[in-house]
Amino acid sequence: VAVYTHIGAEDMAAIVAEFGVGTLTSAKGIAEGVQNSNYLVKTTQGQYILTVYEQREVAADLPFFLALLDHLADKGCPVPHTIHDRKGVALKEWHGKSFALIEFLPGLSVDRPTPAVARAVGSALGQMHAAIADFRPTRPNDFGPKGWFHLAEKCGDDLNKIAPGLKERVADECAFIKAYWPNDLPRAIVHGDLFPDNVLLLDNEVSGVIDFYFAGEEIRAWDLAVTHAAWSFSVDGKSYDADVGTALIEGYDARFHLSNAERAAFPVLARGACLRFLLTRAWDWHNTPTDALVTRKDPLAFLRRLDHYASL
Amino acid sequence: VAVYTHIGAEDMAAIVAEFGVGTLTSAKGIAEGVQNSNYLVKTTQGQYILTVYEQREVAADLPFFLALLDHLADKGCPVPHTIHDRKGVALKEWHGKSFALIEFLPGLSVDRPTPAVARAVGSALGQMHAAIADFRPTRPNDFGPKGWFHLAEKCGDDLNKIAPGLKERVADECAFIKAYWPNDLPRAIVHGDLFPDNVLLLDNEVSGVIDFYFAGEEIRAWDLAVTHAAWSFSVDGKSYDADVGTALIEGYDARFHLSNAERAAFPVLARGACLRFLLTRAWDWHNTPTDALVTRKDPLAFLRRLDHYASL
Repeated sequence: VAVYTHIGAEDMAAIVAEFGVGTLTSAKGIAEGVQNSNYLVKTTQGQYILTVYEQREVAADLPFFLALLDHLADKGCPVPHTIHDRKGVALKEWHGKSFALIEFLPGLSVDRPTPAVARAVGSALGQMHAAIADFRPTRPNDFGPKGWFHLAEKCGDDLNKIAPGLKERVADECAFIKAYWPNDLPRAIVHGDLFPDNVLLLDNEVSGVIDFYFAGEEIRAWDLAVTHAAWSFSVDGKSYDADVGTALIEGYDARFHLSNAERAAFPVLARGACLRFLLTRAWDWHNTPTDALVTRKDPLAFLRRLDHYASL
Repeated sequence: VAVYTHIGAEDMAAIVAEFGVGTLTSAKGIAEGVQNSNYLVKTTQGQYILTVYEQREVAADLPFFLALLDHLADKGCPVPHTIHDRKGVALKEWHGKSFALIEFLPGLSVDRPTPAVARAVGSALGQMHAAIADFRPTRPNDFGPKGWFHLAEKCGDDLNKIAPGLKERVADECAFIKAYWPNDLPRAIVHGDLFPDNVLLLDNEVSGVIDFYFAGEEIRAWDLAVTHAAWSFSVDGKSYDADVGTALIEGYDARFHLSNAERAAFPVLARGACLRFLLTRAWDWHNTPTDALVTRKDPLAFLRRLDHYASL
């Protein structure tokens, strides 16, 4: 969580001038985004987020992510538009790094979701799933079932260093997923990472959904399962808030019908959601240098959530 | 350069409500301040910087720093006002940490100062020195000559690990300062750290001077010497830009008269300014954990500046 790429005032003014959105009056590096540098940029006409993409490996997918933002924003979803420059280009380069200028949306990320907030978040996710139906570009979900199995193998014995027996537990869970994954459910582009810090709220309404950089094709209801796992528990995963979880699903269903087949498979989808974050966190746990700027997150917080869904 | 204290949306909304500046609509942690956490806060009425003071040792001086901001802002200097809460209090506490809400000022910090910018910066410094004359509170400059001598001793042999012979060079320079320091020049509260990143500019005018947390009583013209050393060289200290240096002093003198005695002593004051940053950087060089969030700055960039002033 830091600004990796320093863009000086003179260069920033020149960059912003290319977009025809007025004259630059302020630019502050903001502490958001684990893998990108972000500036909150003000001009005489408005406020924007300038994101510098630090990872070369995502470069090929950036046109997809930016097109997705514009598609959802055009359909009235609370998603930031990208700003196109005078030539119509949204994805640009500065000193060999890709960057984009994106609409600034007001709102705050909550730490302690209430049922009213969860209902609004579910509704916003349903709205996005409706709006995405006619979005044609696609890319795979890097962190779907195949991704988990691969990560489980790569983590190997390191899992038991996190907790005794975790390797076997993960192997059992992968076997469960392989046996019971509801492969016949409808698929779509999903957000895939709709945690509270990716949702901005104003007065219990969703004013912004951000950070679509994990979006990809997956079983559509898995997106709701990820959101459910992300919002309905204490951060450590130890306590489930049924009012929040129920409101989230009701909010979604009111906006975008959740089928009986999707409801029936929900505990399996949710176990898959927990496995996804358990494994990416476990991988990061052993592969993040201790002097990194990033705070490591506890993998076991998602094992506890998994236990909850497994007990349903 | 990071946000050390996380204030969640719910707490931030409650904090901001105490100031009577409208309802919170956005709060972004910004990557400014080495020792403080800073949030760019928006409300329905305006924009503000919320600063959380992370270091307990500065707590006693915070009322001084905040009063100084208000004094200079009241006098029309481009300095942010502090926001006082409904009870009139500017310095408050949250979970045992001191914080203040401060006016947001537009503008950008330049990387490559032009003579026009340097003239504006000199003028702003002169304006502040004029405005500060009737400011009554005081505190010592922690990084005046006694501070340097103390730091030189504390660094000891580590200096030679930065560059062979640096310890002796610093000892010679301390002896020079002891012999020639112009103790009879007028004293005042000085900013003491007026580097480009502490000055905001719009259209070659100073729109904001920030970060007064090194302010203290010192030979007044030393403040101009610090500013001169900070603005008139390439970052590595290898090249001096005479046009920038001259414009800075002319801008100052046009606003606040620089006496002949101050002019005569300027090279000595500037050597003292270089010694100050050489030594604090040298200390940080050996005492900043390599996994710290802070980038270590090269002490020798100020030895090169010192060489320049010593050759005058």
